[in-house]
Amino acid sequence: MKVQLENVKPMDIEKRSFEIITEELGYDLPEKEAPIIKRCIHTSADFDYAKNLCFSEDVVEKALKALKNGACIVTDTQMAKSGINKKALAKYGGEVYCFMSDADVAETAKKNGTTRATASMDKAAEMSKPLIFAIGNAPTALVRLYELIEDGKLKPELIIGVPVGFVNVVQSKELIMQAEVPYIVAKGRKGGSNIAACICNALLYMAGGRD
Amino acid sequence: MKVQLENVKPMDIEKRSFEIITEELGYDLPEKEAPIIKRCIHTSADFDYAKNLCFSEDVVEKALKALKNGACIVTDTQMAKSGINKKALAKYGGEVYCFMSDADVAETAKKNGTTRATASMDKAAEMSKPLIFAIGNAPTALVRLYELIEDGKLKPELIIGVPVGFVNVVQSKELIMQAEVPYIVAKGRKGGSNIAACICNALLYMAGGRD
Repeated sequence: MKVQLENVKPMDIEKRSFEIITEELGYDLPEKEAPIIKRCIHTSADFDYAKNLCFSEDVVEKALKALKNGACIVTDTQMAKSGINKKALAKYGGEVYCFMSDADVAETAKKNGTTRATASMDKAAEMSKPLIFAIGNAPTALVRLYELIEDGKLKPELIIGVPVGFVNVVQSKELIMQAEVPYIVAKGRKGGSNIAACICNALLYMAGGRD
Repeated sequence: MKVQLENVKPMDIEKRSFEIITEELGYDLPEKEAPIIKRCIHTSADFDYAKNLCFSEDVVEKALKALKNGACIVTDTQMAKSGINKKALAKYGGEVYCFMSDADVAETAKKNGTTRATASMDKAAEMSKPLIFAIGNAPTALVRLYELIEDGKLKPELIIGVPVGFVNVVQSKELIMQAEVPYIVAKGRKGGSNIAACICNALLYMAGGRD
């Protein structure tokens, strides 16, 4: 073998990764938010997340309380759903939902000339459960959530607003930070389904949901 | 609404995003690789991918030929599997496999003191189909693929080597670039399941698999 591999046991790889992140950051992050910020860096190898993540007041406490009370998570991609630790979530009675592939969502979107993400937020707003939204892809989902909140039709426990991209992504995040809702937002263009899932997992592990 | 949204129709969002990426890049990418590089930037909003993606000789032609011949894709995460356009892949007879959650893989990994990723590459090597590996998470998967190729036990059509992280990620990618195999690798620490999936999709769309 022509390269030198570091000898780290499988079970220690994540721990060692977090140590490297802490070392390279070179400064202390706010204590409550640190596990979330570091997990985003762990997921992306992108230290920009140390600067671009924005947290509303007491959002971590509110999110942990919601998860422990059995809040469910709604995502805007099957990928984010796939990446969330469903076993950890189930420990408190929560489930993950993604309506993006549902036939009725496709039909409503087509009828109204919206994205499927918009239609799937409307579908989620019909649910009677306490909800956390983890949006890693579609800015139109965030825009619709903003409208639903403004209209008094939805009161989420938390919005994780981390869509990625170039069209209305920056604006949709600014909107959510103006809404009356607890939020964790990656300011700017960056984010993604992987980031949405990893923020959910960071919260679940802080809540004690990891084996 | 307190922010100004750009008025782009749902069906035009991706097209407009690619236009912005092309404008902001400000230089021409190699023609054959451009759709792959741009899709990685589209997926991550990270222009680093314009610099860090490495392609072995004629890899795009080889990959398209393999896909059109019905090659199957093996991933190292359920997230990557979830993100690959399976309808486009099925058009040519291909399927996506991820063995990470399989009971026999967990058992073998435990017995041998390896990661499940290592064990799942061994399981894939037993398959008789032409295979493309899309590795977005586990450097140990790439290391095992290198060993299997060196030992003459595996001859992949393509390795997409884009694990993300801090422990042996850089090294595992260097290894693959030294192996006798067509590769697309994101040099350095960056990558992820989303990047692995989007490279597969870029290739599928170039092969004409998109509706």
